[in-house]
Amino acid sequence: MDIFLKEAINEAQKGLQEGGIPIGSVLVHHGRIIGKGHNKRVQQSSVVLHGEMDALENAGRQPASVYRESVIYTTLSPCPMCSGAILLYGIPRVVIGENHTFKGSEKLLQQNGVEVVVVNSSECIEMMRDFIKDNPRLWHEDIGQP
Amino acid sequence: MDIFLKEAINEAQKGLQEGGIPIGSVLVHHGRIIGKGHNKRVQQSSVVLHGEMDALENAGRQPASVYRESVIYTTLSPCPMCSGAILLYGIPRVVIGENHTFKGSEKLLQQNGVEVVVVNSSECIEMMRDFIKDNPRLWHEDIGQP
Repeated sequence: MDIFLKEAINEAQKGLQEGGIPIGSVLVHHGRIIGKGHNKRVQQSSVVLHGEMDALENAGRQPASVYRESVIYTTLSPCPMCSGAILLYGIPRVVIGENHTFKGSEKLLQQNGVEVVVVNSSECIEMMRDFIKDNPRLWHEDIGQP
Repeated sequence: MDIFLKEAINEAQKGLQEGGIPIGSVLVHHGRIIGKGHNKRVQQSSVVLHGEMDALENAGRQPASVYRESVIYTTLSPCPMCSGAILLYGIPRVVIGENHTFKGSEKLLQQNGVEVVVVNSSECIEMMRDFIKDNPRLWHEDIGQP
């Protein structure tokens, strides 16, 4: 498996060990990880730090030129917020671990010229499937559903 | 002027006094402010805490039912990230101070059933116009532009 997706999965597992939602992400610029992150809803009571947002936040303030030559890896299909952040910063390529358990705004990304690669890794699918089965309320809260 | 938009402007001015980008927001549920915030790019080196995101974050974890009966006020037209957050949480109404200096993803919001009200307050327009004139690089960074 792609080492960067593997790193995103490691982030997701770190989140799970912390009692959080297992979604992880890494931001890669010219083959080097510049930001890693995972969902922080439980750990920091955050409603904005989804995995992708946390990776972007941890990468810190970057010039537009960096984002525009970066790839973001995420274990789960990006929700409207995370997709919006990808569009805001002009990240041209998104590698998605899986979109079986949740399908985010992939179409919006593609319509705006972002290259979307869906791996559908069984490791990612099982991780989310197990989590959702055991924590349906927390999961629904994270995606704004009743 | 609407007291909630006034409160969003107060947040923007607080940001300016802190040396930050003057964009503020409040989240209002059933006529009561449940979260206030302003852009924290400078103050916290944050790339995710735009005004709207900071207001959502400060409102804390809320059930979907609360977001779905809330209104978000923002001094400036919401960027793709903030619009995505509004869609994620299903906030049905957005009141925008102005969209002269920057026009965000209003169309995307409307296409997804969000009611968008643009006030175009001269106070909001002047605040951003002055800020952008004096800080073009910082402003471009905030919207992912070179």
